[in-house]
Amino acid sequence: MIYDILEKKKNGLELTSDEIKYVVDNYTNNSIPDYQMSALLMAICINGMTDNEIFSLTKHMTDSGNKMDLSMFEKTVDKHSTGGVGDKTTLIVGPIVACLGCKVAKMSGRALGYTGGTVDKLESIDGFKVKLSQEDFISQINNINIALISQTENIAPADKKIYALRDVTATVESIPLIASSIMSKKIASGAKNLVIDVKVGSGAFMKNKESATLLADKMVKIGNNSGINTVAVLTNMDIPLGNNIGNALEVQEALKVLNNEGPNDLKEVCIVLAAIMNAITNSISYNESVKQVMHVLETGQAYNKFLELVKLQGGNIESIYKEPLYKYEVMADNEGYIASMNAESIGKVSGSLGAGRMTKEDEIDYTAGIVLRRKTGDYVNKGDVLATLYSSKINNFEEISKKFSESIGFSSEKPDYKLILGVVGKI
Amino acid sequence: MIYDILEKKKNGLELTSDEIKYVVDNYTNNSIPDYQMSALLMAICINGMTDNEIFSLTKHMTDSGNKMDLSMFEKTVDKHSTGGVGDKTTLIVGPIVACLGCKVAKMSGRALGYTGGTVDKLESIDGFKVKLSQEDFISQINNINIALISQTENIAPADKKIYALRDVTATVESIPLIASSIMSKKIASGAKNLVIDVKVGSGAFMKNKESATLLADKMVKIGNNSGINTVAVLTNMDIPLGNNIGNALEVQEALKVLNNEGPNDLKEVCIVLAAIMNAITNSISYNESVKQVMHVLETGQAYNKFLELVKLQGGNIESIYKEPLYKYEVMADNEGYIASMNAESIGKVSGSLGAGRMTKEDEIDYTAGIVLRRKTGDYVNKGDVLATLYSSKINNFEEISKKFSESIGFSSEKPDYKLILGVVGKI
Repeated sequence: MIYDILEKKKNGLELTSDEIKYVVDNYTNNSIPDYQMSALLMAICINGMTDNEIFSLTKHMTDSGNKMDLSMFEKTVDKHSTGGVGDKTTLIVGPIVACLGCKVAKMSGRALGYTGGTVDKLESIDGFKVKLSQEDFISQINNINIALISQTENIAPADKKIYALRDVTATVESIPLIASSIMSKKIASGAKNLVIDVKVGSGAFMKNKESATLLADKMVKIGNNSGINTVAVLTNMDIPLGNNIGNALEVQEALKVLNNEGPNDLKEVCIVLAAIMNAITNSISYNESVKQVMHVLETGQAYNKFLELVKLQGGNIESIYKEPLYKYEVMADNEGYIASMNAESIGKVSGSLGAGRMTKEDEIDYTAGIVLRRKTGDYVNKGDVLATLYSSKINNFEEISKKFSESIGFSSEKPDYKLILGVVGKI
Repeated sequence: MIYDILEKKKNGLELTSDEIKYVVDNYTNNSIPDYQMSALLMAICINGMTDNEIFSLTKHMTDSGNKMDLSMFEKTVDKHSTGGVGDKTTLIVGPIVACLGCKVAKMSGRALGYTGGTVDKLESIDGFKVKLSQEDFISQINNINIALISQTENIAPADKKIYALRDVTATVESIPLIASSIMSKKIASGAKNLVIDVKVGSGAFMKNKESATLLADKMVKIGNNSGINTVAVLTNMDIPLGNNIGNALEVQEALKVLNNEGPNDLKEVCIVLAAIMNAITNSISYNESVKQVMHVLETGQAYNKFLELVKLQGGNIESIYKEPLYKYEVMADNEGYIASMNAESIGKVSGSLGAGRMTKEDEIDYTAGIVLRRKTGDYVNKGDVLATLYSSKINNFEEISKKFSESIGFSSEKPDYKLILGVVGKI
């Protein structure tokens, strides 16, 4: 059976739902060996998948594990980011839409790589519990409309096993495989409305708008096919989002935006994401939704919602202002407009400072990271401070500082860029 | 390194010789796991390989094991068949060209499947030793110009390991992989001249002339690139070759052709193959070569050469006439011209009678097989005997006889077909 399936996919033919179920079930229960699965994944990477195949793959990966039951709530909404540098939007948009009657039952991940995941950022708050019992999780959403926890163990185990194999066989970069991997977990998470932030640019998985649009389109199709109201927003990841990169530093900046301050780029992206989440969940117009979002920011409701959430989940918010042991200021050795910031390189610098983990066993330095003092479009004189590097692990900043400087490009003309590059799906 | 190689091949880029060497060496020594190798093989199947990649793959697979040193001989020639039903040509052309001064140092394989390999056919002769010491092998070639043995252990071990993986990952059917697999073993076998019989049709791996021509072209290019004078002949495998199928039965038929009798189709193919082998090895014209081949057949020299070979390798030629325990005549239940004989189905019938092995442990029934009494183009009346089935294992022929009948197609018009479909390479 698996041989015939390999043969079909090799020849570019469409697999049936039953065939895909056979593969997913038997790979998950170890009946299909890695060497057959990796050959199939490579054939999928090269020959692609039809929409029906993608729907089937997503469904059977979702069905491979537990599904969160949120049917007791009417207005559930979830949000996903394909991952970028300085992306703390979940910490901001979650409290905003929770103020507007949306139920945010959010499961997030720890990250493996040079930046932390949402769960890592939350854990930079002393005492914050990312594990809640099912009962406490539901009860907290009932009470304050929001709970942020780490992903439970048995969500789409098939995806977990397949992803681990893709990671070592150069079969990660495939839009059908990426879309079904993300969506299988989101569908299992149980929300009926979903906004996906598809990051585009040097610091993102999708390097250009074309591939990002294809991915967004597939995810929206999968979501809608599964009865989930899905919208994708393409946002710029050619520069880091906001000024702060690193776990506690990002929580600090999220608090600023929730307090209606904070850097404009981060604020703009959060308002758009929150407004779409609120609009599709409460079935109101986008313009009306933006007004409501601004209102909860201006009145401090969103700020208070976040503090309430942190308190209920056991966190001490003051702890995020803990000083790092070492600091270093990176000075400009050039003058002119900043024309580009390589977000990926800057993310790696942050990782070198201790803000990420390379293996599951690595411990994150929550104080580590970068505060950008100048960003793309700013005029800089020689000797100006470009950024401050923070770490409690590293005190020799020379090499790292050099790497940071190399990620900045200068120009004599002021560059222009957009933050929101497109929206896929119906609002 | 392997990850980058997978990435390159996935994207259809050309691998360097060093990259291919890295893969071959590290897969053979178990440093690259099966799941990465199978992904690479699938990418090769779908995206193909350039000629330079094919040359490198062949070279590094050849270099993975021992090479037969035949440098003490001037006029060495080898022959390979891509495999068909009733194909006993090696037993005939080897003795012919040995009579003409060519050195035939031939290593053959046992077969896994419904027909036996050359070694299986030789082992149907009681006492025939297919294993000779290196010294005896060379000495016999010195004395009588020919020795037929089983392939030594360590010829292209990389190919052996890769082939086993291809077999379970639907990556067998790839012309670059088939061509390099065959040629890596042929190059390691040490002969300086090579004729490849590429079988085309229902009973062959290559089902049509187009794919067979592509394969022939690649093998000839690889051979010439390695300094081996290589010619490929495309021959018809839409019907079995000759009338006898099965191990001892095929040796019987080979003796007939060597005695200048025997079925015309088998004789014609053998004369062409032997004439090309002789022409390229002795640098004479094809027409002159045919005359020489006919001479050694007509004078009984080739026949005697085979008997001498059998005797020197310990065989008792009389043993091939051992009677099977059971026989069965298949009668025609139709009338008209035989328009088609499905060679693959007929091969399977022969396998069911006991002439092949499905696992390495199966024992072959050397007496088993089929003698065809009518072939494509013959006119048949109802009740005429189409074939005789032989076995010492099976005595209930009903089901098998039915399968045989189903493999024969009838027509009211006499069909026409060619035996030699083309030649690739310089004669």
